[in-house]
Amino acid sequence: MSNAFPQLRKDPIVERWVLIAPERAARPGAYHPSHRLPDVPHECPFCEGQEERTPAEIQAVRDPITPANGPGWQVRVVPNRFPAVREELSGVSGGDDLFHVQAGIGAHELVIECPEHQTSLTTFSDRQIVDVFSLYCDRMAVRRAEGKFAYTQLFKNHGMGAGASVPHAHAQIVSLPVVPSSIRAEVSAAMAYHSRTTRCLFCDFLHRELADNVRVAHTTSTMVAITAYAGRFPYETWILPKHHERHFDCLTDRELTDLATTVRWLVGRLEELADFPPYNLVLHTAPFHEAVDYHWHFELLPRLTGVAGLEWGAGVYVNPVPPEDAATRLRGH
Amino acid sequence: MSNAFPQLRKDPIVERWVLIAPERAARPGAYHPSHRLPDVPHECPFCEGQEERTPAEIQAVRDPITPANGPGWQVRVVPNRFPAVREELSGVSGGDDLFHVQAGIGAHELVIECPEHQTSLTTFSDRQIVDVFSLYCDRMAVRRAEGKFAYTQLFKNHGMGAGASVPHAHAQIVSLPVVPSSIRAEVSAAMAYHSRTTRCLFCDFLHRELADNVRVAHTTSTMVAITAYAGRFPYETWILPKHHERHFDCLTDRELTDLATTVRWLVGRLEELADFPPYNLVLHTAPFHEAVDYHWHFELLPRLTGVAGLEWGAGVYVNPVPPEDAATRLRGH
Repeated sequence: MSNAFPQLRKDPIVERWVLIAPERAARPGAYHPSHRLPDVPHECPFCEGQEERTPAEIQAVRDPITPANGPGWQVRVVPNRFPAVREELSGVSGGDDLFHVQAGIGAHELVIECPEHQTSLTTFSDRQIVDVFSLYCDRMAVRRAEGKFAYTQLFKNHGMGAGASVPHAHAQIVSLPVVPSSIRAEVSAAMAYHSRTTRCLFCDFLHRELADNVRVAHTTSTMVAITAYAGRFPYETWILPKHHERHFDCLTDRELTDLATTVRWLVGRLEELADFPPYNLVLHTAPFHEAVDYHWHFELLPRLTGVAGLEWGAGVYVNPVPPEDAATRLRGH
Repeated sequence: MSNAFPQLRKDPIVERWVLIAPERAARPGAYHPSHRLPDVPHECPFCEGQEERTPAEIQAVRDPITPANGPGWQVRVVPNRFPAVREELSGVSGGDDLFHVQAGIGAHELVIECPEHQTSLTTFSDRQIVDVFSLYCDRMAVRRAEGKFAYTQLFKNHGMGAGASVPHAHAQIVSLPVVPSSIRAEVSAAMAYHSRTTRCLFCDFLHRELADNVRVAHTTSTMVAITAYAGRFPYETWILPKHHERHFDCLTDRELTDLATTVRWLVGRLEELADFPPYNLVLHTAPFHEAVDYHWHFELLPRLTGVAGLEWGAGVYVNPVPPEDAATRLRGH
């Protein structure tokens, strides 16, 4: 095993991958999660006109007459300047029963979601929000098709308190050589349930939630937003497709539009109810190359409460807002 | 199932208990994890002379001629005014395959660790730090002996960034009717390893770490402090007893003294190296009433990096400081 970093290390005791990434220390705010974000537009490296401040674009929604890496775009995908994983890294997996390590080979992309200095996706037009989710889908499809990675994690960090270091609306897409532990745990649970019942755990869950109708925040013909029964954070909400499908990138145009507008609606309600809180939006989809039973979904995690000793020590989260109350407030009636 | 709160709810998909505790919304700073802590001693409810501002004491190290709930103490255990769980709650466990709930019956105690307004345990005398850990041990022994709870989580939140709402040095002890998921995961791993090898996973881990000697930060005749091989946070350090023992409260006087002074040394080094960072200190000990193989230990988690989408989505933590470098710096040579 080469000593090159980044490295993915598996905890010797429990199923947990950690990325040891010394180069991440160089990124703005690496050690000061509470430092103030720049909010003056001319300092923003993600605004239209500042394209030379990011690496060359990988993909973009842009006016076809405009050249790459200049103005004229709507959504833009670029490599992260401070990648947590690296595509060009050489190294093999190694170690033993206790100390397992793997080279941190992967890809770390940014989706810059708007050309002007908007920070919240709630201000996006229908066209813009659909373009953003459409690019998410394209990038996930590319990563799955190329067959190099085990899993790709798509997420948005919104606001300083949720780990954002740039306020301009953006998402991150991190491709990894291993299936991370949160996904592994959900897949294992879904597989065990399927063996027992021959049914999808998430489909059964969805049917029960729709029948009970106490935690349903929003529905469309294809999507359901549900406040999580055992939500870790106040207003934690899951958005699931009604149609059973393992892979996010298989979604239909109708689902894409419904998903994009549901997320925009949900974030808008959250901003009204909880005074523009920081949040993380995370995608959960099936491992790329395993024949598993799974059901893709998004989780919206408002960072309204701190995470402290009870959470880190015991894994027990304290949520002061009953999810049934959260659903009632989100629905607004 | 009564609808009374707090409730412990199990996530329908994965092994994760969440405490839905609406009354916790009333505590100072509940919704503003970044609000400024009061630092003026006369406002501190934990200082000597302010005893009427906390519920009546459960136990204390105090001058024998002084009455309870007045001045004259060194360390004091009181119920939390804003408990996350309640002893008097009635209610039964219930639910089904998907939606499992249990009344949040438990106890939530505070250990106020010094009479003067000290915020860091690094300023404690030998006598004081040993008294503090001795009370931790007493309280854990009481909770295990009474047979009411499945597990008791002891932890310290230090600093705003680690979830503390009062700066005066204190610990929290939360007794729960269920074995929480983090403990369950470690116990399952230790049991599986034991079945395979007939040895303790933690003992083997400890022997390997001592032999490799690249992540050992500190040793005494009974205790070892090791930077975690796959640490989630920069300088994450585990403190383990060399002697194999499942239950923390079985430790010897020698171990108690070594543990207390090792933690004080470690926090002191961390304050020097990382400019007084917020941290969580958490105990992991065996479930009280299960015949399991386990090895108690403490984990010190410096909150130097934010937790964002990759962590919440994938369970992959990004740590910019290689644990081997962290150990070298902690040792100071």
